[in-house]
Amino acid sequence: MRVAIYPGSFDPITNGHLNLIERGLVLFDRLVVAVSNNVRKKPLFSAQERMEMIRAAVGDDDRIDVDSFDGLLVQYCQRRGARIILRGLRAISDFEFEFQMTHMNRQLADEIETVFMMTGEEHFYVSSSLVREIAHFGGSVTGLVPANVEARLMVRAKETP
Amino acid sequence: MRVAIYPGSFDPITNGHLNLIERGLVLFDRLVVAVSNNVRKKPLFSAQERMEMIRAAVGDDDRIDVDSFDGLLVQYCQRRGARIILRGLRAISDFEFEFQMTHMNRQLADEIETVFMMTGEEHFYVSSSLVREIAHFGGSVTGLVPANVEARLMVRAKETP
Amino acid sequence: MRVAIYPGSFDPITNGHLNLIERGLVLFDRLVVAVSNNVRKKPLFSAQERMEMIRAAVGDDDRIDVDSFDGLLVQYCQRRGARIILRGLRAISDFEFEFQMTHMNRQLADEIETVFMMTGEEHFYVSSSLVREIAHFGGSVTGLVPANVEARLMVRAKETP
Amino acid sequence: MRVAIYPGSFDPITNGHLNLIERGLVLFDRLVVAVSNNVRKKPLFSAQERMEMIRAAVGDDDRIDVDSFDGLLVQYCQRRGARIILRGLRAISDFEFEFQMTHMNRQLADEIETVFMMTGEEHFYVSSSLVREIAHFGGSVTGLVPANVEARLMVRAKETP
Amino acid sequence: MRVAIYPGSFDPITNGHLNLIERGLVLFDRLVVAVSNNVRKKPLFSAQERMEMIRAAVGDDDRIDVDSFDGLLVQYCQRRGARIILRGLRAISDFEFEFQMTHMNRQLADEIETVFMMTGEEHFYVSSSLVREIAHFGGSVTGLVPANVEARLMVRAKETP
Amino acid sequence: MRVAIYPGSFDPITNGHLNLIERGLVLFDRLVVAVSNNVRKKPLFSAQERMEMIRAAVGDDDRIDVDSFDGLLVQYCQRRGARIILRGLRAISDFEFEFQMTHMNRQLADEIETVFMMTGEEHFYVSSSLVREIAHFGGSVTGLVPANVEARLMVRAKETP
Repeated sequence: MRVAIYPGSFDPITNGHLNLIERGLVLFDRLVVAVSNNVRKKPLFSAQERMEMIRAAVGDDDRIDVDSFDGLLVQYCQRRGARIILRGLRAISDFEFEFQMTHMNRQLADEIETVFMMTGEEHFYVSSSLVREIAHFGGSVTGLVPANVEARLMVRAKETP
Repeated sequence: MRVAIYPGSFDPITNGHLNLIERGLVLFDRLVVAVSNNVRKKPLFSAQERMEMIRAAVGDDDRIDVDSFDGLLVQYCQRRGARIILRGLRAISDFEFEFQMTHMNRQLADEIETVFMMTGEEHFYVSSSLVREIAHFGGSVTGLVPANVEARLMVRAKETP
Repeated sequence: MRVAIYPGSFDPITNGHLNLIERGLVLFDRLVVAVSNNVRKKPLFSAQERMEMIRAAVGDDDRIDVDSFDGLLVQYCQRRGARIILRGLRAISDFEFEFQMTHMNRQLADEIETVFMMTGEEHFYVSSSLVREIAHFGGSVTGLVPANVEARLMVRAKETP
Repeated sequence: MRVAIYPGSFDPITNGHLNLIERGLVLFDRLVVAVSNNVRKKPLFSAQERMEMIRAAVGDDDRIDVDSFDGLLVQYCQRRGARIILRGLRAISDFEFEFQMTHMNRQLADEIETVFMMTGEEHFYVSSSLVREIAHFGGSVTGLVPANVEARLMVRAKETP
Repeated sequence: MRVAIYPGSFDPITNGHLNLIERGLVLFDRLVVAVSNNVRKKPLFSAQERMEMIRAAVGDDDRIDVDSFDGLLVQYCQRRGARIILRGLRAISDFEFEFQMTHMNRQLADEIETVFMMTGEEHFYVSSSLVREIAHFGGSVTGLVPANVEARLMVRAKETP
Repeated sequence: MRVAIYPGSFDPITNGHLNLIERGLVLFDRLVVAVSNNVRKKPLFSAQERMEMIRAAVGDDDRIDVDSFDGLLVQYCQRRGARIILRGLRAISDFEFEFQMTHMNRQLADEIETVFMMTGEEHFYVSSSLVREIAHFGGSVTGLVPANVEARLMVRAKETP
């Protein structure tokens, strides 16, 4: 059985992420959607909230596990016994960063492989940060995020100055 | 009559911006230079000061309107009844960001078109942030910004630790 | 009245080109779709055929003129009395080439301005060369090119070894 | 059982390709190394020779199948009943081309997924065309290609003017 | 005698930096490794500590001088009477930034030339910020930084929350 | 004494090349401008003609040597006993190619170092191929190439169909 870790901030999960999860299941038997819980970043949603939104969005699927992690990604992979990292590529600047991280991760743990899939063309311009920005200014995020995420964003946007 | 919005931080306006405004008037009947007033960023100059510097730099020209806006750019365009956004392109990293924003803005308001012009070769390396940095350390910004901006930068640089 | 030249090989015209023509008419009063007739390249379709396909695709529209040209683009613009060149941007490598050409053209004729629009997200991966390749191997180009172009491509693909 | 197609020109196979094949077997149960046999290109080695060199380099491994194909890659995948394409990424310009091809292939056959792995850092500058160039001028390709390929390259280099 | 300034944050110095220093001595008679002491950034190590680590790493070599500077780099070059700046290039995004800085520095001081060398392939993915991140989470940085830096990083990592 | 090889096609030499030669003399005691004589390319000017044009353009300067070479660049450097290659960088796509070549050359001859300088902003869009194209169509290349090259280009343009 092949297990891949799909790590990210998911602050919040977008339809682009969902598309990648669905397509990742063509490749792997099991996907762990792993929310990065970096205490030095200040996310809009807590790791707990982000996991809830992902679970609601992916629904009931035995092949998908939603989790969160602290520290280095390769350490988390090793703790889970997973040898595959799945990442989405949207643009050149993604590529650069991923290129560097992939080689660094191989240096840290050379038994772990990183694979990439291109985000679908209907979502390649969607990022969590743009979605947060639009919601903050009262724009519509319909079609960019799952319905449960849209509802939470609307509530959070009103609470945040 | 075709009106284009030329949005930006303009903190402060540079000779590269001025060059683009001048050349934009070849394409459009009227240009609105729109200062983005994002409260979460901490600009060197207030929106009011930035508008004053732009007005002094462009001089008296009926075809140019200087304004500021809060919130999403497409919402501002809709309030003004403008269907065209003008943006300058200097480099690859500009391109990436603009690419994403253009597609996102089309998703939010598909009646609005974004057009790009390349910054002149004599100014392509000039950015407001570099200009602020140079002034901060007492370097000369002559030739990089209009004279009225240079004067203000010198004053501000002395006030800022 | 503002006239823009939209130059290209158009070998053949794709739905991405058509989308740009339509959106270009938001910006300009008149668009000249100008087929580059470079004798040193070996196109799949003659300049005459390419012009016919464009005319059939854009239909009857007073604002659109279909033409062809030899030699340097800026010389053609000067002969037509047009001061604006319209170009589509799809990707980073497009950007690089356009960046260089824009500055070179400004050196050759500084009264002429080049403006760019991003190709729509539903067409950004479509290029004439890919379309020719797919047709050559008997793949379907439905949805990538106008119907009249698809028919011609099928015929030409059978004739070409 | 998950089968992935690893397509390429392999003119000739390099140590970078071999590294990717080995790491691809972490992800998939079976890899088809598929030599593209494009009659319009003029390869240094025939498809037959390229397949022989790959077979000698990968050795006896039930999980690896070496084949060649004509025409569109997605048509070949469909004939083989494979839903996964594996590609190596070395650089930005690879990325651009792959980005376009991935979206085009999805348009042609949306049940087929493309995945990418980064070429190892010890091989990222090695390309078949550079290897051919070096061999042509009598330089050493030791360490860049498998030993059997090196021997053949030396012979071919002497035969080619 | 040709003196080159090799400026950077060096927070901390990595084996990639060391490799560049060594190779820079092929080109120049003397290298000044110049630690940028920007009070607005919050480095992990003070300028003093960074200089100590560099000195320990390069050892006793008359051709290498370790120094620190405030303010604009070109002003520092002028104070030192140096006409050459040496910079390492690792990736596309490095290139963009360096491109802009080089032209800006030429505008500020056109007698100063900037030259670039590519970081060695065994170090191109190593950056000071990644090294800090890995150490922070208890990962191993052996092979990425000199031994004296590794020891200090381990201590600092434990002190930092 | 430090000798650097500045290799290229120089078909023909442009003012951008000349600018780089002049600035390279700040760094090195001697520059060898080395015309690549690749028999498989079909240049507009023969290696002999290209060397003549370079000599006329640089004038009488003991520090500059004009030569031509066949085969691999590193082999030529070794024959000349030079350890330094100088290259100009104009754009991202230059960077990619140079990145790959630098690492490949280091693999072939690790005692040879490659250094880069950015082409001046007034020439960054000038390439020999664009200059040939402009001359071919009767455009003016004044300011893009030295006067002696301009004269030769005019003559050659008339002879070439």
